[in-house]
Amino acid sequence: MRQSQLLLNTLRESPGDAEAVSHQLLLRAGLIRQLAAGIYTYMPLGRRVLRKAEQIVREEMDRAGAQELLMPAMQPAELWEESGRYEVYGPELIRLKDRHGREFALGPTHEEVITSLVKQEISSYRRLPVTLYQIQTKYRDERRPRFGLLRGREFLMKDAYSFDPDWEGLDRSYWEMYHAYHRIFERCGLNFRAVEADAGAIGGEGGTHEFMALADIGEDTIATCTCCDYAANLEKAESGSNFKTVIGAGTEDLGQPEKFNTPAIKTIDQLVSSLGVRAAEIMKTVLFAVDGEPVAVVVRGDQEINELKVKSFLGAEMIEIADPESVQAWTGVQVGFIGPYGLTNISVLLDHSAAEMEHGIAGANELDYHYRQLVPSRDLTHSKVGDFRTVQEGEPCPRCADGTLKFYRGIEVGHVFKLGTKYSEKLGATFLDASGKAQTMIMGCYGIGVSRILSAVIEQNHDDNGIVWPLALVPYHVHLVPVSVKDEEQARLAEELYQRLQSKGVEVLLDDRDERAGVKFKDADLIGLPVRIVIGKDAAAGLVEYAERHSPRDKTSLSADDAVERILGMLNTANIGH
Amino acid sequence: MRQSQLLLNTLRESPGDAEAVSHQLLLRAGLIRQLAAGIYTYMPLGRRVLRKAEQIVREEMDRAGAQELLMPAMQPAELWEESGRYEVYGPELIRLKDRHGREFALGPTHEEVITSLVKQEISSYRRLPVTLYQIQTKYRDERRPRFGLLRGREFLMKDAYSFDPDWEGLDRSYWEMYHAYHRIFERCGLNFRAVEADAGAIGGEGGTHEFMALADIGEDTIATCTCCDYAANLEKAESGSNFKTVIGAGTEDLGQPEKFNTPAIKTIDQLVSSLGVRAAEIMKTVLFAVDGEPVAVVVRGDQEINELKVKSFLGAEMIEIADPESVQAWTGVQVGFIGPYGLTNISVLLDHSAAEMEHGIAGANELDYHYRQLVPSRDLTHSKVGDFRTVQEGEPCPRCADGTLKFYRGIEVGHVFKLGTKYSEKLGATFLDASGKAQTMIMGCYGIGVSRILSAVIEQNHDDNGIVWPLALVPYHVHLVPVSVKDEEQARLAEELYQRLQSKGVEVLLDDRDERAGVKFKDADLIGLPVRIVIGKDAAAGLVEYAERHSPRDKTSLSADDAVERILGMLNTANIGH
Repeated sequence: MRQSQLLLNTLRESPGDAEAVSHQLLLRAGLIRQLAAGIYTYMPLGRRVLRKAEQIVREEMDRAGAQELLMPAMQPAELWEESGRYEVYGPELIRLKDRHGREFALGPTHEEVITSLVKQEISSYRRLPVTLYQIQTKYRDERRPRFGLLRGREFLMKDAYSFDPDWEGLDRSYWEMYHAYHRIFERCGLNFRAVEADAGAIGGEGGTHEFMALADIGEDTIATCTCCDYAANLEKAESGSNFKTVIGAGTEDLGQPEKFNTPAIKTIDQLVSSLGVRAAEIMKTVLFAVDGEPVAVVVRGDQEINELKVKSFLGAEMIEIADPESVQAWTGVQVGFIGPYGLTNISVLLDHSAAEMEHGIAGANELDYHYRQLVPSRDLTHSKVGDFRTVQEGEPCPRCADGTLKFYRGIEVGHVFKLGTKYSEKLGATFLDASGKAQTMIMGCYGIGVSRILSAVIEQNHDDNGIVWPLALVPYHVHLVPVSVKDEEQARLAEELYQRLQSKGVEVLLDDRDERAGVKFKDADLIGLPVRIVIGKDAAAGLVEYAERHSPRDKTSLSADDAVERILGMLNTANIGH
Repeated sequence: MRQSQLLLNTLRESPGDAEAVSHQLLLRAGLIRQLAAGIYTYMPLGRRVLRKAEQIVREEMDRAGAQELLMPAMQPAELWEESGRYEVYGPELIRLKDRHGREFALGPTHEEVITSLVKQEISSYRRLPVTLYQIQTKYRDERRPRFGLLRGREFLMKDAYSFDPDWEGLDRSYWEMYHAYHRIFERCGLNFRAVEADAGAIGGEGGTHEFMALADIGEDTIATCTCCDYAANLEKAESGSNFKTVIGAGTEDLGQPEKFNTPAIKTIDQLVSSLGVRAAEIMKTVLFAVDGEPVAVVVRGDQEINELKVKSFLGAEMIEIADPESVQAWTGVQVGFIGPYGLTNISVLLDHSAAEMEHGIAGANELDYHYRQLVPSRDLTHSKVGDFRTVQEGEPCPRCADGTLKFYRGIEVGHVFKLGTKYSEKLGATFLDASGKAQTMIMGCYGIGVSRILSAVIEQNHDDNGIVWPLALVPYHVHLVPVSVKDEEQARLAEELYQRLQSKGVEVLLDDRDERAGVKFKDADLIGLPVRIVIGKDAAAGLVEYAERHSPRDKTSLSADDAVERILGMLNTANIGH
């Protein structure tokens, strides 16, 4: 492509509202343009990268035996009512009416459509298992679209759905997709982790992994082990069972819990400073409304409660911290003086960090009073003990003996999920098994944010001057930059290289603009193609300057022939090109 | 692909509501499934064909120098208000509100988005011309979706837009696209004509061609010359200027127009039977409301008025036949007695067919009276003469001396259109010319119904037993059909061929289902892959039966090697495969 003809404008300055580096660079390098909040046009360069990502995803889905189809974005509301999601999905679901007043949703996902399709098409176990996928535009009316392609309202996804006759089959289908995802993100050149994750709002039973591209801008925190393979979303990361608490006060036999006056001392910080104890000696107790019922959760004072773990432990739909009025109504006392001892008619969940304390301090369920000398193993035997806290960086790995947990921020680029029978039951997707008995199909669903990959790749591959594309996702492989197009020798050699490289299947961008060399170099850095060939004053001698974007200072003067050989060699090694 | 694993169900019977053959076969061969009226899922086989059509379109767009981008389906209503189309487009435009109450349209086309984008990105003549395209899902809330993919509500289009600094440039861009369209439809194996067409509701000045795939189901009629290249949409087809009318009554000098009593005789038919004249001796006069003003249009009694030609001649926005009340109000007389002679204060348009009559009969603008001996060249000199009628099959070609017009039905698969400045003016897309003066960009737009191509191809390529795919758009190249998968020799040879052909880049569907041979053959006919290899009782001797779908009776017994050679030869000749 000749750059003079390309619809490409680079920007010197970052648009003010672009917070994420990838968002800034996508705009500055002319890859995307915003049409409305969270809604973008892919410009020619951006479209090329997006198509390469699509193609990688498609190839690996096909390799994994998944079949491509294409479902509509406009989905009848009736289907969403059948699954029960039409109300639940809330304002993120874009709704519309057709000219006859019939309600439709613009699909943020396609469980309903695919389940009703497969129900229609497959009735025998002989036709199972099957995994179907599409690469298709999705709609989600985000409350706060941001970070460019990371959180948009119209975006490109690959979504796949597996249908199996039994749970062992689902397991095989699930891991087939899991491994395909590994191959996809590896080919995209991403630094990523597959992490154990929470099931979330999509529902369903069983395992789920998120594929997280590591990046500071990521909205998720993931915990990984320094020694073993363990990696989990922070929401889900298990705390090590060997979590022990040593209280300074020694181990001698203690008397009964002792109530003492703590006027207006409500918070852990206030207790610490007024009593001169460590936070780790206090039992932090918080009252939650779980599906409308009160539940008290207790962790050690220096730890945080993980609501998702509580919710998941109780199999609940909804959890929120009880408001002060509810606290008063349920316990007869103000927030700040709740404690697990003597709390009647309310379930108490004791995190291991609290259960393993030798003894501790907690609210007395009476205004301005706390207890001390509370011994969990003696005084809190009616509580249920479990893992209810958020892990902390540096603590022991829950899986291996040697590692500790290290935290990263991650961008979710993929998600594999065992749905089970959630949709097949609601929509009646059954099949006849070998004995002629009707059974419910067992489903999995598997998503990749194809457009999001672009952002993740840029977050991980840039420097101060611009993008540094990994080879698999480049808009073009080579940037040919004649220093002056008015110089005949330079123009001739540039043109010759342009034709030669293209004839070998190399994708070439020729900067044939009549611009100052400085402007061209700045643009080339910003756009970030892997190889830059500068055709300058040595053109007459047949020499060009060869440099790779990832190490811009290693410039080599080469003959045109050698430059071509080097490029072909690089692409061959990477198994790219023709 | 192994057919036992493919999500493919064939149907023996046509679904009752599928009128068009292509619609029936798309459903019966399992290529598409309906989700809602005019909204379809592309099943794995259909998706493969659609992708091949996409790829042909993409390659030819790229070859023509167009740049691919991808614009959103969700378009802010403000843009449509700027162009003035938000109201005009009517109920076909799907509208929705986001969670903040902002209005959006789901794009049926992208003139507004692309014009505002190019306005933003290009400010100098140096960056022009540019042609941009996308292959993207469009939405149009058809009043009556039908014929499967021919008239859907969610469909795949290729839309392209050219921006030029001047009209000569538009002409070049236009013909570049025109020729690319020829290549595309030729590669798709379509029997098509590029026809001159009317500008229609999209607006704009200058030339426009429709690409029509010939098919009886087509909603358009096209007129083509039997000798020369002339072809036009019937709406637009010009009548030959050599249209002459010979009246039986001879050529002697006639007296003044003679009024005569015709009680309750209002229609051409009534005149013909009561007066014993031919329809060709009568001047058919119809009153229209054109942008609210009365216009009388006169054609020879055996001809039909073409409203589009009248509208276009007058440069009007709206034309409709005047209702009886308006006729009475404007002329003082009933419908049935209007005539061009003595019609005061009303414009009269005289079609050549009427203007070239020697003399004729017409309403006298007085109840129950007509005139005869009306001589156009003497009595109707205040009329404007032009081409206001719809041409008829068999009449002389308007372009060449020898040909006559022949009619076909056509499916519009493509449209190239000189938009001019309609959108660039409204949205302010200007550029600075070489002298630094602001000029308005000159636009063209170019559409292809990518999903519609599938229907058109099937309309043209089928027999009683199913589809007969042209090689470029096949779901797979070869259908391998072992007669019995339980026969070890057959299964072994089928598997061997399956592997060998695939390793050569041939796309193979292996019918490994444990079904009766008759069922397999019927399905194979229906799906219509170009080559069928039956592996039957001669498998032990290494022989297979080779047949091509377009001549199913020519069956040849070949060695497996020869069959492979023949397939590779066919694909090589067609320049398909690897």
